[in-house]
Amino acid sequence: MDGDTMVALASIITAGLTIAIGSIGPALGEGRAVSQALNSIAQQPDSSNTITRTLFVGLAMIESTAIYCFVVAMILLFANPYWDHFAQ
Amino acid sequence: MDGDTMVALASIITAGLTIAIGSIGPALGEGRAVSQALNSIAQQPDSSNTITRTLFVGLAMIESTAIYCFVVAMILLFANPYWDHFAQ
Amino acid sequence: MDGDTMVALASIITAGLTIAIGSIGPALGEGRAVSQALNSIAQQPDSSNTITRTLFVGLAMIESTAIYCFVVAMILLFANPYWDHFAQ
Amino acid sequence: MDGDTMVALASIITAGLTIAIGSIGPALGEGRAVSQALNSIAQQPDSSNTITRTLFVGLAMIESTAIYCFVVAMILLFANPYWDHFAQ
Amino acid sequence: MDGDTMVALASIITAGLTIAIGSIGPALGEGRAVSQALNSIAQQPDSSNTITRTLFVGLAMIESTAIYCFVVAMILLFANPYWDHFAQ
Amino acid sequence: MDGDTMVALASIITAGLTIAIGSIGPALGEGRAVSQALNSIAQQPDSSNTITRTLFVGLAMIESTAIYCFVVAMILLFANPYWDHFAQ
Amino acid sequence: MDGDTMVALASIITAGLTIAIGSIGPALGEGRAVSQALNSIAQQPDSSNTITRTLFVGLAMIESTAIYCFVVAMILLFANPYWDHFAQ
Amino acid sequence: MDGDTMVALASIITAGLTIAIGSIGPALGEGRAVSQALNSIAQQPDSSNTITRTLFVGLAMIESTAIYCFVVAMILLFANPYWDHFAQ
Amino acid sequence: MDGDTMVALASIITAGLTIAIGSIGPALGEGRAVSQALNSIAQQPDSSNTITRTLFVGLAMIESTAIYCFVVAMILLFANPYWDHFAQ
Amino acid sequence: MDGDTMVALASIITAGLTIAIGSIGPALGEGRAVSQALNSIAQQPDSSNTITRTLFVGLAMIESTAIYCFVVAMILLFANPYWDHFAQ
Amino acid sequence: MDGDTMVALASIITAGLTIAIGSIGPALGEGRAVSQALNSIAQQPDSSNTITRTLFVGLAMIESTAIYCFVVAMILLFANPYWDHFAQ
Amino acid sequence: MDGDTMVALASIITAGLTIAIGSIGPALGEGRAVSQALNSIAQQPDSSNTITRTLFVGLAMIESTAIYCFVVAMILLFANPYWDHFAQ
Amino acid sequence: MDGDTMVALASIITAGLTIAIGSIGPALGEGRAVSQALNSIAQQPDSSNTITRTLFVGLAMIESTAIYCFVVAMILLFANPYWDHFAQ
Amino acid sequence: MDGDTMVALASIITAGLTIAIGSIGPALGEGRAVSQALNSIAQQPDSSNTITRTLFVGLAMIESTAIYCFVVAMILLFANPYWDHFAQ
Repeated sequence: MDGDTMVALASIITAGLTIAIGSIGPALGEGRAVSQALNSIAQQPDSSNTITRTLFVGLAMIESTAIYCFVVAMILLFANPYWDHFAQ
Repeated sequence: MDGDTMVALASIITAGLTIAIGSIGPALGEGRAVSQALNSIAQQPDSSNTITRTLFVGLAMIESTAIYCFVVAMILLFANPYWDHFAQ
Repeated sequence: MDGDTMVALASIITAGLTIAIGSIGPALGEGRAVSQALNSIAQQPDSSNTITRTLFVGLAMIESTAIYCFVVAMILLFANPYWDHFAQ
Repeated sequence: MDGDTMVALASIITAGLTIAIGSIGPALGEGRAVSQALNSIAQQPDSSNTITRTLFVGLAMIESTAIYCFVVAMILLFANPYWDHFAQ
Repeated sequence: MDGDTMVALASIITAGLTIAIGSIGPALGEGRAVSQALNSIAQQPDSSNTITRTLFVGLAMIESTAIYCFVVAMILLFANPYWDHFAQ
Repeated sequence: MDGDTMVALASIITAGLTIAIGSIGPALGEGRAVSQALNSIAQQPDSSNTITRTLFVGLAMIESTAIYCFVVAMILLFANPYWDHFAQ
Repeated sequence: MDGDTMVALASIITAGLTIAIGSIGPALGEGRAVSQALNSIAQQPDSSNTITRTLFVGLAMIESTAIYCFVVAMILLFANPYWDHFAQ
Repeated sequence: MDGDTMVALASIITAGLTIAIGSIGPALGEGRAVSQALNSIAQQPDSSNTITRTLFVGLAMIESTAIYCFVVAMILLFANPYWDHFAQ
Repeated sequence: MDGDTMVALASIITAGLTIAIGSIGPALGEGRAVSQALNSIAQQPDSSNTITRTLFVGLAMIESTAIYCFVVAMILLFANPYWDHFAQ
Repeated sequence: MDGDTMVALASIITAGLTIAIGSIGPALGEGRAVSQALNSIAQQPDSSNTITRTLFVGLAMIESTAIYCFVVAMILLFANPYWDHFAQ
Repeated sequence: MDGDTMVALASIITAGLTIAIGSIGPALGEGRAVSQALNSIAQQPDSSNTITRTLFVGLAMIESTAIYCFVVAMILLFANPYWDHFAQ
Repeated sequence: MDGDTMVALASIITAGLTIAIGSIGPALGEGRAVSQALNSIAQQPDSSNTITRTLFVGLAMIESTAIYCFVVAMILLFANPYWDHFAQ
Repeated sequence: MDGDTMVALASIITAGLTIAIGSIGPALGEGRAVSQALNSIAQQPDSSNTITRTLFVGLAMIESTAIYCFVVAMILLFANPYWDHFAQ
Repeated sequence: MDGDTMVALASIITAGLTIAIGSIGPALGEGRAVSQALNSIAQQPDSSNTITRTLFVGLAMIESTAIYCFVVAMILLFANPYWDHFAQ
């Protein structure tokens, strides 16, 4: 196998696994945050503004870790820094 | 094995595993959010509008991580950036 | 092994594992949502309309991740984009 | 090993594992939903009609993921789209 | 190894693992449903008819996933669709 | 290795693992059902007849998945359908 | 390696693993049942007869899955149906 | 490697693993039963006779699965039925 | 394989896995912190300022471990210290 | 490798793993029993005699599974029944 | 492969895995501490000073284990003590 | 590799793993016992003598399983019964 | 591969894994201790001095196990006792 | 590879893994004990002397299992009993 084949293979497999594994944590974390937000709104409807605002900031924070993974996966697929070296 | 065979193999296997593994987290997270939403509606029927609205925003946020995986799987199957290099 | 054999093998195995692994999360998530819906109906029979409506929207959302997996499995079996390249 | 042998092997093994792994999630999810339904009926016997109706819709939804797996397993055993290509 | 040996091996091993793995989920799910049914009968003896009827429908639904596995295992042992092709 | 050796090996190993893995789920499920039955009898001694009757039906249902495994293990050891083909 | 060596090896290893893995589930299930029985006797001393009788029936049911494993292990060690074929 | 070496190796390794794995379940199950017995005695000192008697019967039942493993390990070390065939 | 190929492969695979595995912990930890913050706001709306301020400091602390992983992944992709040595 | 080397290796490795794995279950089970005993003494100081007596019998029962493992490990190291056959 | 290639590979892979695995524990631990701090502030707003001060000391303590991992990863990438020996 | 090399290797690796794995169970079990002891003392300060005495007997019992592992590790390192046979 | 290459490789990989794995336990343990300390301060503000003092002693005790790992990792990187033997 | 290389490798790797794995249990156990101690002090400030004294004895007991691992790791690195035999 030549270098370009192996780099392409590694990039494809790693991109998929990165976003696949990287989506487990954020999805579970966001599910927990959302479910607690709904619970809090039901308990304290008057604070729903503060709650949803804090929720969205928190979700963005959690989503950021998923986005790190998505960014790395996209870099590996479309802007792989090692590809130019091998793909003559 | 030639380069095109291996890239095809890697793309097929990775696409499947990406969406398979990537669906576990969002499904569990959404299940938690939905179940809590139902619980909150039962406790506070008057806030059902706020609750369902927050729920749908949250579900969209959680679903986004599953969609990242689906996007990567579709890219690997139908718009693989490394395929043109190998499939002469 | 030739390219067509390996692509066929990879497609068969990946299709099966994709739907198998991909059904664990949605099934558990839906089980949780349904069980909570039943609990909420028992607590608040008057809201059963709102509850079942929210439940069905939520189940459709959760089922969507299972359907992503099913779609990928069907694509791999019946519309494999890499098959034409190898099956002369 | 020839192509037909390998496709047959892969189909047999994948069909078994698909339905085996794919039955874990639905069985657990349905067990949870049924157990909660029984609990709800005991708490609110008057709503037993609404509860069992919602339960059966939910069970059908959960069962659908098991059926996806069963369908893929049957396709692999009896209508394998790659078999005609190899079994001359 | 010839084709018939390998198909026989794969069928034997897959049949065993299919029913072994496939029995974990249903057994746990049914155990949960039965235990909750007993709990509900103790709480609400008057509804024992509705409860046991719902229980048996639910158990049949859960058992169905075990039966899918048993069916696939039996097909692999006694009506293997690939066996005729290899066993001359 | 000849075909008969391999079929014998596969049958022995699969038979053992099938009943070993297949006994985990039923044993845990039955333990849960029995323990809840004892709890229910202590709470509601007057319903002990209904409870034990429902318990035994449920235990039979759960035991059935263990028996599927036992049946497959016995078939593999004493009535292996592939053995006649190889054991000349 | 000859056929008799491999069958002996497979039988020894499988017999040990079968009873080892097969003892985990029943032991945990019985521990749960016994502990709940003790709890129930402490709550309702008057029903101790019904409780212990139900307990022993349930323990026998759970123990049966361990005994299936023990039977298979003993068959593999002392009455292996494939041994006569290979041990000339 | 000769047959006697391999049978000895398999027997040694299997004997150790059998009793090692087989001691996890019973130890945990007995720990649960004993701890609940102590709890019950503290709640209902008057029933301590019934409780300890039921405890010892239950412990013997749980211990039996550990003893099955010990018996198999001892058979493999000191009365291996396959040893005479290989150790000339 | 030459040194530059292997270093590129190792960097690609490690970068992906680092951010994928490294996003699980922070996402779950942040999800827990956010959900508790929402709960606390609902319980004590008057302290929402202190709570959100403490929350954001805590989230930054937790996010820092994800950022360590992202930094290492970026270093491996774009500023690999070992690359210059091998990429002549 | 000669037979004596392999038997010595297998005995050393198995002896270590047997006692290592075999100590997990008993230690956890005893920890549970002891912690519950302390809890019961604090709840019912008058029954401390019955409690400690039952505790010690139970600990001996749980410890017995650890001792089975220790016995097998010692037999493998100092009284290996297969050693004489190989160590000429 | 030469020594410098292997040391570079080992350093790259180990650096990534070290910080990836090493971020799981601290992130979860900090998430727990932060969430409890928010809970405590909501319960006892008057002690918020003591609570946040103790929280920050505790977070620093927990973060220190992540920093150990980060330090080791940085050493492996930028100050590898074994690199000079091999990179002539 | 000669026999003495392999026995030394096996002894070193096994000794380390034995005490490493063997310390998990006792440490967790003792942590549970100690934490419950502290809880009981806080609930019933008058019984602190009985509690600490029972605690220390229980800790010694739990520690014994760790000591079994330590003894085996020390035997493997400093009094290996198989070493004399190989180290000429 | 020469001896110095392998010792360097083993030291690099082991150092990273040691601190990575070794940071999981302490981080989780400290997170638990800190979170409980915050809870206790909120419940009993008057004892905050005793609580924080006991907390810091406990954290130091838990941190010590992380430091053992850090010490071993540093020894392997900068004071490897086996390095002088191989690095001529 | 020569004997001295392999013994050095095994010692390095085993020393690291021993202390890494061996630190998980004690750290978690101590975390539990410390957190319960803080809880008990908050509940019963008057018994803080007895509690902290019992805590420190218990921590020392738990720490002892970590120290066993540290001792074995140090022996493997600095006083390896098998090293003299191989390092001529």
